[in-house]
Amino acid sequence: MAIIKRTNRLRSEDNTGFGANSSNSAGRFYDRKRGQPNIAKRGVGILDRYSWYHTVLGMHRAKFLLLIFCVYILANLAFASIYCLIGIKHLSGINSGSALKNFTEVFFFSTQTFTTVGYGRISPTGFLTSAVSTFEAFLGLLSFAIATGLFYGRFSRPRAFLKFSDNALIAPYKDGTALMFRMSPFKNNILSEAEVKLTTGIQIKENGKMANKFYPLGIEISKINSLALSWTIVHPINEKSPFYGFGPDDIKKTKIEVLVFVQAFDEVFSNTVVERTSYISEEIVWGAKFKLMYHPSEDKTTTILNLKKLNEFERVEMPIPVLSSETIP
Amino acid sequence: MAIIKRTNRLRSEDNTGFGANSSNSAGRFYDRKRGQPNIAKRGVGILDRYSWYHTVLGMHRAKFLLLIFCVYILANLAFASIYCLIGIKHLSGINSGSALKNFTEVFFFSTQTFTTVGYGRISPTGFLTSAVSTFEAFLGLLSFAIATGLFYGRFSRPRAFLKFSDNALIAPYKDGTALMFRMSPFKNNILSEAEVKLTTGIQIKENGKMANKFYPLGIEISKINSLALSWTIVHPINEKSPFYGFGPDDIKKTKIEVLVFVQAFDEVFSNTVVERTSYISEEIVWGAKFKLMYHPSEDKTTTILNLKKLNEFERVEMPIPVLSSETIP
Amino acid sequence: MAIIKRTNRLRSEDNTGFGANSSNSAGRFYDRKRGQPNIAKRGVGILDRYSWYHTVLGMHRAKFLLLIFCVYILANLAFASIYCLIGIKHLSGINSGSALKNFTEVFFFSTQTFTTVGYGRISPTGFLTSAVSTFEAFLGLLSFAIATGLFYGRFSRPRAFLKFSDNALIAPYKDGTALMFRMSPFKNNILSEAEVKLTTGIQIKENGKMANKFYPLGIEISKINSLALSWTIVHPINEKSPFYGFGPDDIKKTKIEVLVFVQAFDEVFSNTVVERTSYISEEIVWGAKFKLMYHPSEDKTTTILNLKKLNEFERVEMPIPVLSSETIP
Amino acid sequence: MAIIKRTNRLRSEDNTGFGANSSNSAGRFYDRKRGQPNIAKRGVGILDRYSWYHTVLGMHRAKFLLLIFCVYILANLAFASIYCLIGIKHLSGINSGSALKNFTEVFFFSTQTFTTVGYGRISPTGFLTSAVSTFEAFLGLLSFAIATGLFYGRFSRPRAFLKFSDNALIAPYKDGTALMFRMSPFKNNILSEAEVKLTTGIQIKENGKMANKFYPLGIEISKINSLALSWTIVHPINEKSPFYGFGPDDIKKTKIEVLVFVQAFDEVFSNTVVERTSYISEEIVWGAKFKLMYHPSEDKTTTILNLKKLNEFERVEMPIPVLSSETIP
Repeated sequence: MAIIKRTNRLRSEDNTGFGANSSNSAGRFYDRKRGQPNIAKRGVGILDRYSWYHTVLGMHRAKFLLLIFCVYILANLAFASIYCLIGIKHLSGINSGSALKNFTEVFFFSTQTFTTVGYGRISPTGFLTSAVSTFEAFLGLLSFAIATGLFYGRFSRPRAFLKFSDNALIAPYKDGTALMFRMSPFKNNILSEAEVKLTTGIQIKENGKMANKFYPLGIEISKINSLALSWTIVHPINEKSPFYGFGPDDIKKTKIEVLVFVQAFDEVFSNTVVERTSYISEEIVWGAKFKLMYHPSEDKTTTILNLKKLNEFERVEMPIPVLSSETIP
Repeated sequence: MAIIKRTNRLRSEDNTGFGANSSNSAGRFYDRKRGQPNIAKRGVGILDRYSWYHTVLGMHRAKFLLLIFCVYILANLAFASIYCLIGIKHLSGINSGSALKNFTEVFFFSTQTFTTVGYGRISPTGFLTSAVSTFEAFLGLLSFAIATGLFYGRFSRPRAFLKFSDNALIAPYKDGTALMFRMSPFKNNILSEAEVKLTTGIQIKENGKMANKFYPLGIEISKINSLALSWTIVHPINEKSPFYGFGPDDIKKTKIEVLVFVQAFDEVFSNTVVERTSYISEEIVWGAKFKLMYHPSEDKTTTILNLKKLNEFERVEMPIPVLSSETIP
Repeated sequence: MAIIKRTNRLRSEDNTGFGANSSNSAGRFYDRKRGQPNIAKRGVGILDRYSWYHTVLGMHRAKFLLLIFCVYILANLAFASIYCLIGIKHLSGINSGSALKNFTEVFFFSTQTFTTVGYGRISPTGFLTSAVSTFEAFLGLLSFAIATGLFYGRFSRPRAFLKFSDNALIAPYKDGTALMFRMSPFKNNILSEAEVKLTTGIQIKENGKMANKFYPLGIEISKINSLALSWTIVHPINEKSPFYGFGPDDIKKTKIEVLVFVQAFDEVFSNTVVERTSYISEEIVWGAKFKLMYHPSEDKTTTILNLKKLNEFERVEMPIPVLSSETIP
Repeated sequence: MAIIKRTNRLRSEDNTGFGANSSNSAGRFYDRKRGQPNIAKRGVGILDRYSWYHTVLGMHRAKFLLLIFCVYILANLAFASIYCLIGIKHLSGINSGSALKNFTEVFFFSTQTFTTVGYGRISPTGFLTSAVSTFEAFLGLLSFAIATGLFYGRFSRPRAFLKFSDNALIAPYKDGTALMFRMSPFKNNILSEAEVKLTTGIQIKENGKMANKFYPLGIEISKINSLALSWTIVHPINEKSPFYGFGPDDIKKTKIEVLVFVQAFDEVFSNTVVERTSYISEEIVWGAKFKLMYHPSEDKTTTILNLKKLNEFERVEMPIPVLSSETIP
């Protein structure tokens, strides 16, 4: 196959962290939605497999709040049960009645202890009940100490808040063509010293079996001082590119994945943030170019960046390379 | 125009993150007051457009405290309304009276629950009221957990605490002239390994239309070990400078913006801090030099840095360059 | 001895931070379990010798929780004693009885104050008792403020979560042999830009006395973009290696320690994490190679990494070098 | 003077951040005790001059705790006064008596509100009193939120915990002499990738007036992988050194200050830490060398580092250079 011959000219990259033998791995290299390598782990217990802190930090906000609330309710149900087991006669001030009524009274006493509200209408009198409530108040405060840490950990977690175009385009560029995609910060964060690295994984037949080959992709401007507007990454498809001579069909037929790694400095967090994404063959559009996404404001005092246009492109006519695998056996 | 010829000799910089086509953008590149790129975003919902954490961190202190207090009052008004809707008869110990009196009693019960003070003069008895107060105490504690995180986030946020002179000066320097401005840390923070980068944006006519051109500006000493005194940044206007041959009128007539990016290591926060500013044509003073702003203490044991003098300069006579656009067509 | 002659060809490294004179130090250089240099400190007071924050951060979770609970109990025992000394008559609402009964009542009053539950069944009336409880509530809140910080410090502490193979292997590699070991992240953390440095410490006789010599070890791929799968570090034993010509007996007889230093960027913490380990002679296996530890998932959509196989290796036949110290005097 | 001739051979450093004109500054460059540049600031208001967060972080522990306690007492005195002004009849449950008795009762009610203990023996009934207590409980919680942040900020603040020898020594080294000093980490923190930079400031007469000249000092090993034992920094006094040819009297008579800047990576904090110190002429000892400060443990399993010996040195005979200013006019 022609692709192999062409890619063989190039020095492949062997430090991607992914294996070269394609029969040992499967699926995309990157899970695009999570922006993480597409790998599952086995052989460690469920408790050891996850860093609960990493998990909680990555959780959706609603899920996180629900989790905290559930822990709160469950803890109080557990303590209410303990108080009932000890006997409600050790709680002064309770309006006793049916078993359910008693349990709810005890449950509310428990929540008043856990949150340290302690109205005092109900208060513990016996030794055991007092001891348990002593422990519960302690546990309650610690729980909120942990919650405080989790909240802070969540919202102080440095994130790049970058949106990538859904597609990478192959567009005319200077005398030839180039692979392009673009990104834009979508929040009021300020990124500087942004840098991008591109690597492509290509599955090719080597010595009779399929292998993953990785190639670095050259970029016109791979570093910018200030990432405030949209940034179009341009990989010129010249002789140094593994895609040189590829026509639209070569791209479709070959298992390609362009791995994108962006690193920038967030000036508010004063921290380095990274973001990953990838484009596979199906996400690469042949013969299209991006539309401009910013324009001056009406009063000419500022520049407006329209994020809705991030993935807007228009078709352009482009000649199909003569080196295409269609023409070369 | 002569300026174009001269700047064309130089290699322009294309990694500033700002567009080259001046008709697509407007206003200053940097909003000097905020120290941020002068760009507004559209096309994302109001909720997605801002990282609320970045917003809260950048807020003025008084505004931030007011915000927290308002949230506190509004939350308690809401809970007080809920308790009133359920019925105040489910709250024991209330001194009932007029509707307003009742509402204030309930409001104060609510605040006592939200803050977990829980005096207990008023306490919930019914199921619904107890359940709501259980939820309120939980929410109250979480709110203060979040407030704790915000306070810490605000005051631990690494900032450079740098003041820049209001003007950049063009002063005699060695055999020629130089563009100078200075900066000084104004608090008891300690900055080391400070580094400065200068880029200038110049609007020039190219092929009949106005374009933004960016040029790096060389600096005499662009890195210092310890930023404790004032630091004067000196860009010598020699043949490598885009301002070479500029007279006072050229500077006035041309749309110039000198972009300043300072990076330093804060030894207390143990973190890198950055600061941005810019000087436009109107802020550049021709023929002036800064006055010294530090002197020995009276007892000769320390050095005094007077920050009031940061922008103090004196006029100096300087010959107007012969290459000036006034003399060359 | 032949080893000395061979290692003398090589430039040793003198910036390891460990001394060259082996009679001044003892034991392994690295304590492998703690991943820290094997050094004890004297000459500073017990209070100054430890950074209690570093100590608490490194403590096992159960030990940490127990510590906090003990502080809580001890603080309340102390305050209960103070209240008893002042006299329980200054506490209204107490159910007095035997001395023990009184003490437990006072103890629970103390915990209710320390945690700020404050049911109010028991409340202070006298001046001294009120003053002590004022101080106790203050201290209680500060304690939980500190606990909050410790919890956050513990779970936000950047760690690499890397597991290393128990053994380093000497396996056939290309035309010769190589020293290999491997590592793998075992949690759902994402590491990028991982880099490894290898140094070996060898104890050799020099001018009649034993000395520590350190040599950098070359690595085939010392940096990878994404540390998601297992990573096998390969040090080719060629002429530049201090182990060149070593047979299995040379390794056993020589006091060798391979020092491993891994640095990576954790994308969730947005921070650099480091990890250290070392392999001594006894942990180096001659003639073995690692088994593959990942495979495609059944539905071919992802790659499965089996961490149980991290140290699985199989024996391989390998010729013993002719340069071996057995054959050369 | 001979010193000027000799130092003039060398390229001076102009990026120290200190001025060259010695008549503009006074005293040591570095305040050795604080490890900070010896500079005072004027011209900014007292409130703007200090970053209170930097101040609180650098404060001694006892002072910090006292500060927090004073704020607590003062805030409660203020609130107690407000409650008294409104009238104690709006507080139910008060044991009224003399004015002082009333004030203490109100003061304790205030502390119970501020800490949210809220026993409830005393509780607010009137509108104003309730409103003030609502605000006080809010303020109390915020205060403890801020205290939480300060505690965390204080103990998570990355510090190098390095001790430097009190003196720098001039000792025989190889064929000549060298300026040496040493440092050692004194706590259970782990520092890696430590790097040291040395600059010397020398006051010399230039064109008739005294000027500060700065010279970089070369170091034998300026970077080590692991800073676990003591680290002796060696600046060989060869022809490239500004001290070349200096005798003991030259050092005494010249105003010398050796500026030390250490940077390392703390593996627990996962952060870069820096430390500064300086040695002036009086702190430099001619003809002395350090004693070894570590030895094997008795059971030969670990290495013991004795920090008491950090500054222990012994006198050595050394020839006085022939180039000394005593012999050359």
